[in-house]
Amino acid sequence: MAPSYKLIYFPTRGWAEPIRFILSYGGVEFEDARIPHDKWPALKDQTPFGHLPVLEHNGKQAGQSIAIARYAAKQVKLAGKDDWEDLEIDAVVDTIKDSCLKLSGLRTETDEEKKKALRENVLKEVLPYYLKRFDELCQKNNGYLAAGRLTWADLYFVSMSQALDIVAGFNILKDYPKLAALKEKILEIPNIKKWVETRPKSEF
Amino acid sequence: MAPSYKLIYFPTRGWAEPIRFILSYGGVEFEDARIPHDKWPALKDQTPFGHLPVLEHNGKQAGQSIAIARYAAKQVKLAGKDDWEDLEIDAVVDTIKDSCLKLSGLRTETDEEKKKALRENVLKEVLPYYLKRFDELCQKNNGYLAAGRLTWADLYFVSMSQALDIVAGFNILKDYPKLAALKEKILEIPNIKKWVETRPKSEF
Repeated sequence: MAPSYKLIYFPTRGWAEPIRFILSYGGVEFEDARIPHDKWPALKDQTPFGHLPVLEHNGKQAGQSIAIARYAAKQVKLAGKDDWEDLEIDAVVDTIKDSCLKLSGLRTETDEEKKKALRENVLKEVLPYYLKRFDELCQKNNGYLAAGRLTWADLYFVSMSQALDIVAGFNILKDYPKLAALKEKILEIPNIKKWVETRPKSEF
Repeated sequence: MAPSYKLIYFPTRGWAEPIRFILSYGGVEFEDARIPHDKWPALKDQTPFGHLPVLEHNGKQAGQSIAIARYAAKQVKLAGKDDWEDLEIDAVVDTIKDSCLKLSGLRTETDEEKKKALRENVLKEVLPYYLKRFDELCQKNNGYLAAGRLTWADLYFVSMSQALDIVAGFNILKDYPKLAALKEKILEIPNIKKWVETRPKSEF
């Protein structure tokens, strides 16, 4: 029987990887549909808002990477146990996304001078600002980012940190021992380990 | 007795206004704390991630405007009735935010030539792209943006559309009858009407 979930994205990890981590964690089978970039223009207008990822389930479609990740987290019991915990988790996830967006500007800036200044600012100011606070959250939350235990915020962070390492050009967690320990712990979860070992290879 | 919620933001509607709409809709009392911009530097490091809005409740703090709006929506029964409905609502809200971010670039661009080109692109391409799709959603959802009934996505959209009108310089919903009807309907809800009439005046 075909999996009941189809996750549509480009042939990269990108914004879909946290969703793949979360579904894999819960052992939820999904069709990992990867659309080559040259096939995208023809498909774009068939998506809800002209963006990927899109999740298909029971004949319905929904977009927005974080919204899909949150939905997936509820299916695999990685959400909060009450509304305030969900707020804490959601706030961390949106902040991780904000920090990723600031780094992704490094990839898209084409003016070399501006890129150098941006890189200096992002790597010396922006990234340490966020990572210091995330590290403190781990200190307060029993080694996790929110709610004192494993939630989808942790899977979101670890899957995205691998992308940030590539954009930054170094291990961004090297000076943040709690975050480095969190990453190691997440990547040792058997279902995550299996996903990372068997997922399609891609640069990003 | 002091309200159990304190919402901290700048003296503007901005990213906090959807939260104020949602709390007001449900008749939830909250302290509407407005920090003058000259007091912000001293407060910044006391917030979770150096940003406003922040919600305080039971001695705890949480940030991120959409995360707070979602939390508020659950308290006033404006969330989905199942996980997929919540996904649909969340996806619409994140897409509204994306469209607002594209417009807000108009305010921050200082180069006059670039600003003109950006304005042309945003008003003739980006905004119609999103508004056409939001209007279609209303067609499919019984006059609302998601789930076939009133949810916090509608309050989010209407409160932000007032800001977009100001940035665009005209009524952005004039060519979108379903969205215009939604706005009118939301602004006629007695608790929302009361909030809009009595809220502090500000440009944005």
